[in-house]
Amino acid sequence: MDFSSKLLERAVDEMSQLPGIGKRTALRLVLHLLKQPEEQTSRLSKSLLDLRENIKLCSNCFNISDTELCEICANPNRVSEIVCVVEDIRDVMAIENTGQYRGHYHVLGGKISPMDGVGPSQLTIKALTEKVREGKIEEIIFALSSTLEGDTTNFYIFKQLEGTGIKTSTIARGISVGDELEYADEVTLGRSITNRIPFENSLKS
Amino acid sequence: MDFSSKLLERAVDEMSQLPGIGKRTALRLVLHLLKQPEEQTSRLSKSLLDLRENIKLCSNCFNISDTELCEICANPNRVSEIVCVVEDIRDVMAIENTGQYRGHYHVLGGKISPMDGVGPSQLTIKALTEKVREGKIEEIIFALSSTLEGDTTNFYIFKQLEGTGIKTSTIARGISVGDELEYADEVTLGRSITNRIPFENSLKS
Repeated sequence: MDFSSKLLERAVDEMSQLPGIGKRTALRLVLHLLKQPEEQTSRLSKSLLDLRENIKLCSNCFNISDTELCEICANPNRVSEIVCVVEDIRDVMAIENTGQYRGHYHVLGGKISPMDGVGPSQLTIKALTEKVREGKIEEIIFALSSTLEGDTTNFYIFKQLEGTGIKTSTIARGISVGDELEYADEVTLGRSITNRIPFENSLKS
Repeated sequence: MDFSSKLLERAVDEMSQLPGIGKRTALRLVLHLLKQPEEQTSRLSKSLLDLRENIKLCSNCFNISDTELCEICANPNRVSEIVCVVEDIRDVMAIENTGQYRGHYHVLGGKISPMDGVGPSQLTIKALTEKVREGKIEEIIFALSSTLEGDTTNFYIFKQLEGTGIKTSTIARGISVGDELEYADEVTLGRSITNRIPFENSLKS
């Protein structure tokens, strides 16, 4: 694209660095900002800079937080002995939204993915195993995405915890509530039969 | 959405003000920025602020420009007597990309759209009619989108220019190059028959 203004070109270039935003969309967004009051642009820019400069990770669970200890870890009503291992803050928010979980979290910050150059040392796995060795945790729930990378990460952590005698579990994979059987994929359907639960249990929630 | 961090919440809120970006996408973009080096965020923010603060509109055609007169208006090789009326800089870029146009532009900054609260006074129509009355222009080419708003704007300007004796034209509407007739809509096909051109002319480009 040929821009009549270097300022515009630079803003579009930077905007199009964001994932899923191409040059055309970036131009549309930037032109939209130009039509809005100047405060909107300065609020957007300042909130991003502010976040990037002052962002903190909870010292216990590595979730994004404004305080040294996040709200969940600081809440005395939550069960600190049960820890749910998730990829990032979006998974924490998704699980919190269910209202079904009262334990703590441990945010890995990603999944092991050699293709993307992410190894175990870039994640917070070491901090997790240390917490386990200190005997503070009774159960670990793996709640990573059911993908190759997610399974690899689960297995890597599982191996690291060998010998600690800690109880580990993984969230149930099965047919989604409301789904029709005939459209379910074979792997999911197979797992949901293998891991069937007593019928009485399904009446609880 | 319930955020564990006010900083994150504010950044996501501001990001989701952009058109076509909902809360979920905004969160994905903001989390992406957090994973990138800090420079990327500061470059994005600064380029947006810089653009918003220092943006200039060409004093002749109202296109976005870094200089008092945009590159096109300042170019002595371009025909200043022919003026193509467009909505915004994206249309200028699209027409420039064809390499077929050597005249000037006049950027309206939008279309008349009562539904969106945009009236003639918010556009640069007055500046255009003044240029015409000063006798500097020989032909005006309307190149707005072929929508209700575009047609309304064309007609409004056409009415404003009544009595000036200026030549006005509009870009041809017709079947796109490469399109199959049977899939064309009736209005377009009808117009392309009414406005048929001598066959020799179609061999030129």
